[in-house]
Amino acid sequence: MPLDPARTVAELRELRELTGDENGAQRVAWTETWQRAREWLRGKVEPTGAVEEVDQAGNQWFTLGGGSAGRALLLGGHIDSVPNGGWLDGSLNVLAAVEVLRRIAEEGPPPVPVRLVNWADEEGARFGRSLFGSSAAAGSMADQAELARLTDRDGVSLPDAIGRYGVSLDSALEARSQLEGAGAYLELHIEQGPVLESIDLPLGVVLGTFGVERSRITWRGQAAHAGSTPMDKRRDALAGAAKLALELRAIAREVGDGAVCTCGGVVCRPGIVTSVVETAEQLLDQRHLDAGKLARLLELAKVAAQRFADEENVEVEWEPIWRIEPILFDDTLIGFADEAIREVAGVSHRLPSGPLHDAAEVARAGVPTVMVFVQSLRGLSHTKLEDTKPEHLELSVAALDRLASKTLSWLAG
Amino acid sequence: MPLDPARTVAELRELRELTGDENGAQRVAWTETWQRAREWLRGKVEPTGAVEEVDQAGNQWFTLGGGSAGRALLLGGHIDSVPNGGWLDGSLNVLAAVEVLRRIAEEGPPPVPVRLVNWADEEGARFGRSLFGSSAAAGSMADQAELARLTDRDGVSLPDAIGRYGVSLDSALEARSQLEGAGAYLELHIEQGPVLESIDLPLGVVLGTFGVERSRITWRGQAAHAGSTPMDKRRDALAGAAKLALELRAIAREVGDGAVCTCGGVVCRPGIVTSVVETAEQLLDQRHLDAGKLARLLELAKVAAQRFADEENVEVEWEPIWRIEPILFDDTLIGFADEAIREVAGVSHRLPSGPLHDAAEVARAGVPTVMVFVQSLRGLSHTKLEDTKPEHLELSVAALDRLASKTLSWLAG
Repeated sequence: MPLDPARTVAELRELRELTGDENGAQRVAWTETWQRAREWLRGKVEPTGAVEEVDQAGNQWFTLGGGSAGRALLLGGHIDSVPNGGWLDGSLNVLAAVEVLRRIAEEGPPPVPVRLVNWADEEGARFGRSLFGSSAAAGSMADQAELARLTDRDGVSLPDAIGRYGVSLDSALEARSQLEGAGAYLELHIEQGPVLESIDLPLGVVLGTFGVERSRITWRGQAAHAGSTPMDKRRDALAGAAKLALELRAIAREVGDGAVCTCGGVVCRPGIVTSVVETAEQLLDQRHLDAGKLARLLELAKVAAQRFADEENVEVEWEPIWRIEPILFDDTLIGFADEAIREVAGVSHRLPSGPLHDAAEVARAGVPTVMVFVQSLRGLSHTKLEDTKPEHLELSVAALDRLASKTLSWLAG
Repeated sequence: MPLDPARTVAELRELRELTGDENGAQRVAWTETWQRAREWLRGKVEPTGAVEEVDQAGNQWFTLGGGSAGRALLLGGHIDSVPNGGWLDGSLNVLAAVEVLRRIAEEGPPPVPVRLVNWADEEGARFGRSLFGSSAAAGSMADQAELARLTDRDGVSLPDAIGRYGVSLDSALEARSQLEGAGAYLELHIEQGPVLESIDLPLGVVLGTFGVERSRITWRGQAAHAGSTPMDKRRDALAGAAKLALELRAIAREVGDGAVCTCGGVVCRPGIVTSVVETAEQLLDQRHLDAGKLARLLELAKVAAQRFADEENVEVEWEPIWRIEPILFDDTLIGFADEAIREVAGVSHRLPSGPLHDAAEVARAGVPTVMVFVQSLRGLSHTKLEDTKPEHLELSVAALDRLASKTLSWLAG
C-alpha cells in the first residue's frame, strides 16, 4: 500500500466527528472521549501488524518488529486535546505516523523496530500539568508529590483519575524503559504560530524548543491623590512597568536570533481612577533557543528595570516563577528534515518552537530528536478555529514519511 | 475674648477623643457618632449667641445676627469624616470658624450677618455620593432618583438613613434658600496634597477647584502565544496603554499651569504570562483649573492614543466616565486671602485644589468664594495618619480670622 496522505486528512476528519462537538475537539486526557479515541486508534493501526502496549504512564505504543540489533525509530504525537480544542494539535502527528507505519509495514519487516507512541496527557488540560506521559518516559517527572495533590474542577484527584486508566504515580516512572532502545524520535506538529504563514511556506524544520525564563516583577511607588499631587511629586509604580513593557522590544532586538519577550499583564493597586498607582505587578516571559542569550535577555531586563526604578523613584523586585533550559534537536536529523521538506515542498525553513512539545522531553532524555512544523492558518490553536490547508497537511505527511525513510536508513546503517 | 488659635487645636483634640477610636475619626454622616459631634458643636457655638438652624438638607447653620441690609458672610466646613479618617479634614474648618465667630461676637453685632455652616455629608462615605448638603444648598443636586436607590453596605437605603435625621430627598433642595442672602463664602482646609510641604510654606490661597475629565480607554490587539509569536508579528494592546501612560507626563508638561494627568490602572486580558495582551482597559483622570486647557489635555491624549494605536496596529476606543468643569474662586477674595496669609505667615502661595470641596458647590451657585489651605504633613488624608503641625494649625486660624475681617469690611462697605 503506497503512502496515501489524503487518507490522513480523511482520518483526522473521522476522529473529529467521533470525538468533537460544535465547540471543537473534546479529547481531554483521562476521560471517556479520550479513551474512545485511543480505541479508535488501535483499530486503525491493527492492520499494520504493529503490537500494542500501554506503559506505566498511560502512553500507548505500537511496535512494528524489526532487526533487534539496531535502535528503534520512534514516531510520536498525542491524541489528547484541550477542551474545545482544534482538530490537528497532537492528532495530526499520530495519524501521519499511522500512515508512515502502513507504508513501512507494506514493505516488509523494517531494519530496526519502528514504534508509534501516542503520549498520554500532553496538554495537561484537566490537572494543569502538561507532558505527563512523555516526562515520565523521559525520567524528568520529578514532582510526584505535587501531582498527587492536584484535583480537577470537580474535585477529582489526579491519582483517582489516572487510576481509572490503570496508571499510578508510584509506577509511572517505569515508563522510562520505553526509551532505552530508542535511536531517533520524529514528531510532526502544526506550528501554532504565524511564522510559516507569514513567509508563505507550508513546512519548516524545528531547531529545538525555547528555553524560558518567567518572572514576576513588582514595582512599588506611592499612592497619591490624582488631583492634589503635582506631576513632579509622584512615585508612579505603573510608569516603571510601562517603561519595561516597551523596553522589552529593544531587548529582544538586541539579543536577536528569534528572542521573544512578553509582558502578559500588569495588575495595578489600588487601581482606581483617582489615585497614582502604588503597586504594579508585572508578568514577564522571555524565551530563546540559546541558553546564553536567554540569560542575557533576563539580565538586560533586570538592568533596564533598575534604571527605570531609579528614574521613577520607585522600587522594583524580581521573583522567578518558572524556568526551563533550551532543548536543541539533533543536527543530523535536522539535516534529514531539511532534505525531506525540500523534496516534497521545494523550500525549507528553520525555526525554533515557542511552545513545549513531547519531543522536548524525549530530546532531554538523550534520544536524537527532530520536529517538522506545518503551517497554521492565522497561527490559531487550542480553539475550534485551528486549521491548516488540506494540501499542506498532505505535504506534511509526505515530508514525515521521507524523514522516516532517511532516519531508518541512518539507524540501520 | 480675643482670638485664641490654640483653643482651636485643643478643641480639635477634644473632638477626636469624643468621636474617634484607635483607627481614627468615625464621624460618618448620618450616624450616631456624627450626630454626637453636631450636638457637641452646638454646645461650643452656644455662648456666642449665634442661632442654630438645620436646613432641609441636614446642614447645620449658626447665625450671628447683623445689619439686615448687607449680604451675609458664610464660614463653612464639615464635621463628618470618612471611616478611620483623620482629625482635621473638615473639622478644622468648622472649629476655626467657631473661633472666628467668638471673636466677632465679642466685638458686638457685626455689620452683616455672619453664619457658620456645618455641611451635611461632604464625604459621601456611606452612600458614595459626596457633597450632599452643599450641592442641595447650591441647587446642583440633580440626581434625586439615583440617590433614592443608593444603599449602604448593610442594605440601608439613603432615604431611610437621612430620614432618621429629618431629611428627605423631596425637600432637600429647599436648602437653596440658605444661600440667597450670601455675600461671601470662606473655607479653610488642610491641603491633602504635598505642595505646601514641598515648598516649606504653612499656608496657601486656593484659586479654584480643578475641572476633571475622566475616561476609560480600551485598547484591542490580538492574543498570541508568548512562545510562538515573533516580536514583529504582535498586536500588543498593553503597548498602546503603556505608551499613553508615559506620554501623559509630556502632555501635562505641554499644557502646563498645574495640569495633572493620572493613569490609575490598566486591566489586561487574558492577563496570563503565556499570552500577548489582547485587551487593555486604561483609566485616565485629567485635571486643570482652566476649561480650555482641560479640553486641550483631553485632545492631546486622544491624538497621542491614535498615534500609538497606529504604531502598534491595535484599536483604541474612548469612553467618557465623568466630567466637571473647573470652578474658579473670587478674585477679590483671593486678594484678601493673600493679604491675610502674608500678614500671619510672611509669604503666601497660590495653588489650585485637586480634590473637590463644599466651597466649589457654593462658588457654582454664584456666591463669591475662596479657600485657604494649610500644609498637610506628607500630603496624607483620609487616614488616621493625617496630620498638620500645631503651629501651622494656629496660623491657619489666624489667617481665616484676618480674611473674615477683610471680607466683612468689604461686604459692609
